[in-house]
This record gives sequence, structure tokens and C-alpha cells, in this order.
Amino acid sequence: MHPSQGPLDKILSPESVVFLGPSNKMTNMATGQLLTTMSGGFKGDIFVVHPKEEKVLGIKTYRRLADLPKPVDLAVMVLPTRIVAQTLTECGEKGIKRVIISSAGFREVGGEGHKLEKEIAEIADRYGIRFVGPNCIGVCNMEEGLCTTWFVPQKTGHVSLVSQSGTYISHTMPYLSRLGFGIAKTISVGNEANIDIVDCLEYLGDDSQTKAIALYIEGIKRGKEFIDVARKVTRKKPVVALYVGGSEAGARSGSSHTGALSGPDEIYNGIFKQCGVIRAGTLEDLYDWTWALATQPLPKGRRIAILSNSGGPATSMADTCIKIGMEVPEFSTDLQSKIKEFTFPWASSRNPIDLTFNLGDVGPFYKNIPEILLNSPEVDGVLVYGVFGTYAFKLLKDMAMGKLDISLTDMEASLTGLCEEFAKIPHLLGKPILGSSFFSREEEPLIALLEDRDIPIYPSPDRASKAMAALCRYAEVKRNEY
Amino acid sequence: MHPSQGPLDKILSPESVVFLGPSNKMTNMATGQLLTTMSGGFKGDIFVVHPKEEKVLGIKTYRRLADLPKPVDLAVMVLPTRIVAQTLTECGEKGIKRVIISSAGFREVGGEGHKLEKEIAEIADRYGIRFVGPNCIGVCNMEEGLCTTWFVPQKTGHVSLVSQSGTYISHTMPYLSRLGFGIAKTISVGNEANIDIVDCLEYLGDDSQTKAIALYIEGIKRGKEFIDVARKVTRKKPVVALYVGGSEAGARSGSSHTGALSGPDEIYNGIFKQCGVIRAGTLEDLYDWTWALATQPLPKGRRIAILSNSGGPATSMADTCIKIGMEVPEFSTDLQSKIKEFTFPWASSRNPIDLTFNLGDVGPFYKNIPEILLNSPEVDGVLVYGVFGTYAFKLLKDMAMGKLDISLTDMEASLTGLCEEFAKIPHLLGKPILGSSFFSREEEPLIALLEDRDIPIYPSPDRASKAMAALCRYAEVKRNEY
Repeated sequence: MHPSQGPLDKILSPESVVFLGPSNKMTNMATGQLLTTMSGGFKGDIFVVHPKEEKVLGIKTYRRLADLPKPVDLAVMVLPTRIVAQTLTECGEKGIKRVIISSAGFREVGGEGHKLEKEIAEIADRYGIRFVGPNCIGVCNMEEGLCTTWFVPQKTGHVSLVSQSGTYISHTMPYLSRLGFGIAKTISVGNEANIDIVDCLEYLGDDSQTKAIALYIEGIKRGKEFIDVARKVTRKKPVVALYVGGSEAGARSGSSHTGALSGPDEIYNGIFKQCGVIRAGTLEDLYDWTWALATQPLPKGRRIAILSNSGGPATSMADTCIKIGMEVPEFSTDLQSKIKEFTFPWASSRNPIDLTFNLGDVGPFYKNIPEILLNSPEVDGVLVYGVFGTYAFKLLKDMAMGKLDISLTDMEASLTGLCEEFAKIPHLLGKPILGSSFFSREEEPLIALLEDRDIPIYPSPDRASKAMAALCRYAEVKRNEY
Repeated sequence: MHPSQGPLDKILSPESVVFLGPSNKMTNMATGQLLTTMSGGFKGDIFVVHPKEEKVLGIKTYRRLADLPKPVDLAVMVLPTRIVAQTLTECGEKGIKRVIISSAGFREVGGEGHKLEKEIAEIADRYGIRFVGPNCIGVCNMEEGLCTTWFVPQKTGHVSLVSQSGTYISHTMPYLSRLGFGIAKTISVGNEANIDIVDCLEYLGDDSQTKAIALYIEGIKRGKEFIDVARKVTRKKPVVALYVGGSEAGARSGSSHTGALSGPDEIYNGIFKQCGVIRAGTLEDLYDWTWALATQPLPKGRRIAILSNSGGPATSMADTCIKIGMEVPEFSTDLQSKIKEFTFPWASSRNPIDLTFNLGDVGPFYKNIPEILLNSPEVDGVLVYGVFGTYAFKLLKDMAMGKLDISLTDMEASLTGLCEEFAKIPHLLGKPILGSSFFSREEEPLIALLEDRDIPIYPSPDRASKAMAALCRYAEVKRNEY
């Protein structure tokens, strides 16, 4: 099959899209979907069908699908449930082969909904249509500027998300943007009446923009196919899954949400383990871990060095590492003496390395010590806690209200240069660095710089340690040790 | 003992303070400490001793402590290690009975540092001085505007933090401010050569502004006294502890950080259990849990209702609740039918309640259903996931660039009123509500409103569930069930 004929290619990369449902009313979900596509920079043709309005958001409308000047690659519909089947038929008649059905009211509501869902699946089969949904928010492809998900990701990156919850690829975008998390593609699969999570996994496995895949799962329909596809994909790239249907309450909630068929936690543990999928414990894990996996080289073992300019976070990172099965070995005296050339006499260099708060020369923190560590055969990866940048001084300067003669320009220039070099070290030396800071990327531009050069900086030391463990686990999957 | 004569009263609430160490150089830790005190609104007298400068940050200086016009309540010193002992003696001679010693280079560096630390302890005993430190960042008392910790908390609240890491009460302030977390008092205990964590616990146990206490512990020196004091304090108010010294790497890191004596995890588990202290797993837990404990009423059992306008977060909250030993019981048909009066026909009301995304009447979400739930004998507490406020619409409005005629004023006014009422429900009905949203308090003013009226809104659904579990655990401590 030619790649462009796979079920998802023309859904993520259409040359033309028709929207059914948007109006000039803001409180209409479809209007939001059209808007986020329009403002995402999508280069293809956008058509709108509306039964009455002449124009919607400034776009000239067509009364019916049949009136469109040509068949289009993709139809996106948020229509009242009762007219979805009829409109899908019209798509078929018009030669539209790919559809996103956002409308709800199908299998997830039970009873009549089941019948309606069966009906649209049959119509799709009849016309050779492949569709995402129903009961979903759609897709986003950052490369194409296509985004039907209400919230446009702020940063293009290499993680792709497939979710049985629309929220986790829409409302979470402000959260992910604050984190500095970059997105490649997102797919909200909804009820999976046609295209399912297995199709998405297969598609993203072959997608060159995607370097790590995050799955939010309430239940998998095609277990055997999932295992077959995931086994192949995890040879090539990491897959992390959050499965929440294992408890009775989770299953109850999932079934009314997407009609998912869930199973006990242990069964899913077995499935994931068999095919090398890493299981996340929480939503934060899912995002945190794929962020590291999409950006950093893999460690060759579990021996972690910790570099900090503060004792508390160093101790927290060490403690968390040990609790989750990583090693924080005491360095050899040889390695310690190499490190000590760059530290204060009172700083600890045993591992963790606590440089203590240093307002002077920061070269050792950003350059000399990271290089020593990543060059050492004793170290597989480095965790860094840092008071990156000049944010602390900016706050003091504001407080001083002119009473201190402070110029931060030189310090900023020097730190910017150091951070640029720092960000290259992991890929140069083939070992990962993950960071942690309590300042945000908005507060401290150097954190944004590091993140935008693919060094994830997590908001807490524990989260950095857990993300490092995910890197180790995926390295083990690739080495067939997991 | 009169309260004002306890070791910490005049350290947290001095009427006058002298700083030893600040200069007009920004890259001097003491300068930052003086600045954060000056800008914190401290009403007492501030003196500065400097051997050469006439003025420091605009304040006229004294050459020596002996030159001060009167004895002061508190001295704060960040001086070179070698002159700390001599200066402490001068404090004694001047009649200064309370001191914060920020200088490092004592027990934590081993060797000579041990001797120096013993020496300052002896000087303090000789003069009846009580001091915090050495090797600490000092204290913050939001009520008094006293803050020597470089980062001034943005919000006054009812959590007090005692930490063997200075970072966790200083660099973390921007993080806590973004979270909406309110602070009462903070104490960085450093090496605990005189005042220790037990003294702090005793002090905060009696402090009326403090409603929950967070402890960051690398090692406890006076185990028996800790248990005795903690047992009394946890009868009155919740104490949550993060202990990180249990692993070999954690212990190694802690010992070079504050010279702490750590012990195996199991021993600390036993200590905490004996005295009703709740143990946090991570730094995020420590902050998240004390936030809930300081603001919300305690649940009478573990039966949690989940209310959401999105399926994914509802399912995540339910799944996490079950995994950590909470209950998410299916509601009785009676309770379900009461709820159904306020939902769409397709919404689920079994628990979790998923109202589905609703752009119209939000009264059921903020008022009717929360009241029904907290009035029900089937429910001990409520978790809410919400797309609070109009942030989503504001984003769309910006994208529409005038193509949509949107006025959000009425919607905002109505939502503000609803949120004001919503925030009162927990205390009116005596059961807790905790929330979760992916929008920040800066992005969405209604989140700030809810948080400022003591409804914590966590950045992820899982964290809200875990904080609810902490409320349940402390309720069990108070009922002697834990």
C-alpha cells in the first residue's frame, strides 16, 4: 500500500478539507475547530458547508456537500447526531474518502447510540471511507498547520499523542506549552468505530516527524493486532501508554466516555510488557517520559550522575532514582579528583555532586563537569538541578529599585553561550542529560533555550529522575532486556 | 515559658533585626537576604553592620555590633566562616539572644568544620543564644513581612514549611506562586547546631497562622523528642514529611549537604506512623498535600465523588483514587436521579459524573450538583475537573481576529458569581472539594479566584486524587484509625 493510501495519511496531511458544522457562533464546537485550523497556518484549501449562512468566519459557504467544486481529501463534521449517517453517505457520494466525526451521542450513550454507530461503520465500509471518531476532537499535524483541536500547540516537536480522551490532546495544550513540550502530531480517536489506536500506532511508527509516541488508553479493542504492531513499532521508536481502565471505577468511567472495553490491570501489564510498551502511572508520567524519549539519547545502563548547585534537589533526585531502581554510584577516587579540579574545596563530588550555590564562575556547572561525567565509563546519564540563568538576580534588581548598580547584560550573554554549548553535550557524547528547575521557561529565558534545544527541564527533581528511568527502560526494550 | 520566650518566637517575629554581611554587591548572598526583608514590608527596625561601607542599600551602617544604639531581637549573619564564632560572641556581649547563621563551611564539610560547629554551639550556650543554622537561608514570616530567603512568597496562606534544604523554601517560591500555594511561615534549619526541626515543629504547632506543616527531612537528630512533639502536634494540625535519607545515595548526599544522620526508610516509616505524620513520596506530594490540608475540611471516609466536564480526566481521577486505596462508589439510583435532573440525557451520573463539554448553562457544574453530592450520605469528598472560566473562548476570540462578534463580559460576570458561591460549599457542608485544570491561574482568573478562596486546583487530575487521599489519611490520624 502506498503510504498516502493508509487510513490516516490524508487525515493528517490532506490537501483540502471541508468543515460541516461551523457557524458564526462561538459556542459551537465546530467553529472552534475551523478557527484553530485557519489560524494554524494550514496551506491547503478550506471549504465550509452551512445550510443557511452565506459566509462563516469570512469563508464563502456551500449549501450542501454536493455543491463543492471538487472532491476534497478530508471532511470534518460536528453535526447533530441524527444527521451524521446521512452526511457520511453524502461524503461517499461525493468521493470523500477520509472523515473526522466529532459528533457525540453514539456507542458511549448506549441503546440507540450503538445502532447509530453500527450504521455509520457500515456506510463507511460501503463507500471505502476511513474515519476517526465519532465522539472525538480530531487531529493536529504541526508540520501542516492542520489543527482541529481547539487549542493549538505552541511548540513543534517530536512527540505524537494518540488519545481516547479528546481533552488530553486539547485542553492540555496550555499545560504542555508551559512545560516546553513539543508536539509532532495528535489524534483523538474517540469511539474508534473505524480507525482505532492500532491504526494510529502503525501510522506513527512510520512517521518520520514522530520520535516518541504517547498513548492514552481506556481500553484496546484489537488486542492481538495491538501487540503485533506495537512490537514492530517499539523496535524503532519508544511508545509510552497510560492505561486507566483497570479499576472498576476507571472501567465504569471509560465505558460511559468512549464505550471502551477495559480489562484488569494485570492483563494490560502483560500486553505492554510483551510488546515493549512502557506503562506510565499518571498523565504527568505520560507527557514527561515521552518528552525525554523524543529528545535525548538513550543511556547504556542505569548508573546516573547527579549534578546540582543545591543540596536538597540533589538529594531528592538521588532518593527517587534509588526508589525506582536506578543506581547513583559513588564515583571512583579518580573520577572524583577530576571533578574536584572544578569545584570549591567544600563541594561534594562523590555523587551527587553539589557545587553549592555559586555566584561566580559557572563554567564548571555547564561545561567542564558535564563533559567529565558523560565521558566517564562510570556514568550512563546525568541529572542536573540548576538555578539556570539570571532570574534570581532580576528579582533582586527589581526589589533594589535602583539602590544596587546591577548590569546583567554580560552575565546573560555569557550564560547564553554556555547553555548553547551545554545543550550539545548529550548528542555529542551519546548519553542523556535531563534537568530540573523551579523557575518556568517564561520566567527564565535560559530554560526556554535549553528546552528548545531538546534538554527537557522538569518542574520538580523527582519528575526528572522518573523520566531518566523511562529512558533506561526503553534502552532495555531495544536491547531486549526489558 | 512565655510564648515570646520560645527559641523561635523572636526569630520569626523580631521587633528589630541586624544584618551582618550585606554589601552593595548583588553577588553577595547577604545582600539578597537584606533586600527580600526590606521589600517584604517588615515594620521593625533594620540595622546593618559593615566594616567599611557608609551605607548599604541606602541604610546607614554601623562598623561593629558594639556600636548599635540598642540590643536588637535578631541578628542575621552571612559572614566568612572564620569570623562567625567571634561575631557570635559579640552578639552575646551585646545581649542579642536570637541569631540566624547562614554561613556555610561547618559540619557539612567534615574535619575542621565539625570543630567550628561545636565552638559556635558552645558560645551560644554560654550566652543563652538560640540560633538557626549554620548553613541555612533563614526564615520567612508572611504576617510580619520578614523574609530572608531571596525569594519572597507571592501569597500568604496557612502552610508552614520547615526544611533541611534552603532551596525548598527559597528557589521553590516561583513554583509555589505559579501553583497558587499560600505560605504562612518558612524555616530553613540548615545544620541544626542549636535549633532543630523538633523546636520548629513545637513552635508551629502553637502558631495560629499555621494550619498545616510541611517538613523536608534528610535526617532527624532527636528521634524520641520528634515523636513526642509530633504526636502532640498532629492531634491539632496535619504534618506531612518528605524523608529522602533512606537510600545509600540519599544518605551520602544528605550528609554532605547538612551533615544529617539518616537511617533506613523503614525506621522513618515507623517513626512517622507512630506519631501520625503523613509521609510524602515526592516534593510535589509535600506541597500538594499540605495545600489541601491547610484549606479544606476533612472527609469522614474514603468515598469520593468525581465531577467533570470531560471524560479523560474523570477516568484518570477515578483510576488514581482506586490505586491509592480510595473508593469511587457507583451512586444509588436515588442519588443518580437527583443528579440527572441537572444533566444532559447522555451524561453519565453513575460516578464519575461526566457532564460532557457544555457551553451553555454551567449552574449544574458549579452549584446544583456539588451541593447534591456534598449533601449526600454516600459521599465523603468531591474531586472536580473543570474547564473553569472563559480562557478557551478568549483564545478563540484572539484567533478569530474580529471575524466573530464575541462578548465575554456577561459570561465572565456570571461565572465569577458562580465560582464565589462554589468556593463556599465545602466549608458550609463540611466536606472537601479539590479541583484540577490544565489552565494556569495566570491564564484563567477564575482559577486564581477559586484558589484564593481556598479551593486548590491542581495541574493534573492524578495530583488532585493524591491530595484527596492525604485529606483522608489525616482524618484517619485524627480518628486514631491510621
